[in-house]
Amino acid sequence: MSGPIVALTGGVGGAKLARGLVARLAPEDLHFVVNVGDDFEHLGLHVSPDLDTLLYTLSGESDTERGWGRRGESWQFLDALRGYDGPDWFALGDRDLATHVLRTHALAEGARLTEVTARLATALGVRHAMLPVTDDPLRTVIETGGEALPFQHYFVRERCAPAVTGFRFDGAERARCTPEVRAALADPDLAGVVLCPSNPFVSIDPILAVAELRAALAACAAPIIAVSPIIGGDAVKGPTAKMMDELGVPRSAAGVAGHYGARSGGGLLDGFVLDATDAALQQDLETTGLAVRVEQTLMRDLDDRIALADAVLAFLASLRTS
Amino acid sequence: MSGPIVALTGGVGGAKLARGLVARLAPEDLHFVVNVGDDFEHLGLHVSPDLDTLLYTLSGESDTERGWGRRGESWQFLDALRGYDGPDWFALGDRDLATHVLRTHALAEGARLTEVTARLATALGVRHAMLPVTDDPLRTVIETGGEALPFQHYFVRERCAPAVTGFRFDGAERARCTPEVRAALADPDLAGVVLCPSNPFVSIDPILAVAELRAALAACAAPIIAVSPIIGGDAVKGPTAKMMDELGVPRSAAGVAGHYGARSGGGLLDGFVLDATDAALQQDLETTGLAVRVEQTLMRDLDDRIALADAVLAFLASLRTS
Repeated sequence: MSGPIVALTGGVGGAKLARGLVARLAPEDLHFVVNVGDDFEHLGLHVSPDLDTLLYTLSGESDTERGWGRRGESWQFLDALRGYDGPDWFALGDRDLATHVLRTHALAEGARLTEVTARLATALGVRHAMLPVTDDPLRTVIETGGEALPFQHYFVRERCAPAVTGFRFDGAERARCTPEVRAALADPDLAGVVLCPSNPFVSIDPILAVAELRAALAACAAPIIAVSPIIGGDAVKGPTAKMMDELGVPRSAAGVAGHYGARSGGGLLDGFVLDATDAALQQDLETTGLAVRVEQTLMRDLDDRIALADAVLAFLASLRTS
Repeated sequence: MSGPIVALTGGVGGAKLARGLVARLAPEDLHFVVNVGDDFEHLGLHVSPDLDTLLYTLSGESDTERGWGRRGESWQFLDALRGYDGPDWFALGDRDLATHVLRTHALAEGARLTEVTARLATALGVRHAMLPVTDDPLRTVIETGGEALPFQHYFVRERCAPAVTGFRFDGAERARCTPEVRAALADPDLAGVVLCPSNPFVSIDPILAVAELRAALAACAAPIIAVSPIIGGDAVKGPTAKMMDELGVPRSAAGVAGHYGARSGGGLLDGFVLDATDAALQQDLETTGLAVRVEQTLMRDLDDRIALADAVLAFLASLRTS
């Protein structure tokens, strides 16, 4: 490698590529900048779903069968909570609770979210930097025409049922990047930035809503690419495709590419990774000013993740020399 | 019954008699005033061990095999906590955690401990009032000659090993009784007060350390009795006997009676319940001004608990007419 990579990521989809990247890059060559827009307070506990998904994925603690949470999880706390008529719509597992209790306690004692995250990650053997984009409050709110919903209420309690009309990122205008994120993006050796295949609206956009982060990306000399979370007009997981329909964004990889935009047209990206299923879109996307690479982007196992990571790194290398 | 009873109690030993009393008295005829001196903050959670022991005992939720905590308990949280190198000296069970998380959250939202306790108790079907002696901070500190230890550090982390030289009840001088406790003791129909067979030094004394409570007892016309937690020179459970040795208090039921003192001699009690094993002490105790009743006080099962409750109620009735 010529220098470190920064990967912007949300939860499950992004974490899969993240897992591939850590298999290829040393800790000093890879920094994750992670969405905190879906963080929330539940029963007084600070829950950071995307940080936790990344933590559990990178440490081998994730439940790959269920697709979220920790492996070997149990639900005795939740059962006892129901015995008290407590709110059970957000499934806090017994093992997962250790993460939230320790995080909440450390934050209350004055630690930054970045510091707490580093402690938890180190304890579970994760050596690559998992950096919340900001230590300031930043909360994604889903606008639905009717009631505006905090992200987890929309995502978990309402199971993404309400039609989305827009998004708000409360706190974004006051949120600063962390010093760690700032340093990672200001590194003169930075070899590239990759937007992982996470939901553009609620996983990546809250990161980009931090003005300082957005400005750092605009100023960075390294290539910036995104991997499409849409394959063949559908999302692998989650409400991305449904949201695109509701927002009137074309439900395709091209819709995602258009959402981020090409740098040459005032947007964010130098390059875009399409799934082979969507190879037909390549030419159209190239006319928008994007370099396009067609790959197998569906990640069913670790080999897929590493292969896609290799492709991403090769794409960035090619963009640096072009 | 001629009127309601107030029972002062700490954890395990007191809760056994409490269980007997609820079998005999309607909710309007029985109020528990509970020690909060061993409450503490652990990982940011407000833990109230004596309230919880009483709650679990009265609701049938207690683990009678292990002797503490909830039945059907599991330890996944604790195991995950160890995975983070978190503090595991205090065993927080997965089911027990629901109690602490809900309590902590409600307190943070401004509820009084009395209110939170009532909500938890109601949800578990407990109909008798479980009243913390105070909603103010009151913390038992164990003086050891060397380092002074918060109660749970002494009791759980150090397993009662350090020799005790004395006790401090931090916050007692500023702590007020709750309105509920004040009303219970001011009831003109009050038929009696019983000090349950809990540790006098660290379960009952923190309650008595609240000046307003102590004054209310001194002023109350109803008889006040205690049930000895010492049988045949030993405690049924816990460090009571060890503490008596270390403090130079005679390790006997007479030592306990002397600790509380007879009302006629400026102390607290009108009567004292001795175990049959200690019947020989009766005459000496009577010379100190106490009415004495000899009973089977070891409570192995529910029948024992109810039988002792009956004896306590009969004793109080006899003292009211004497």
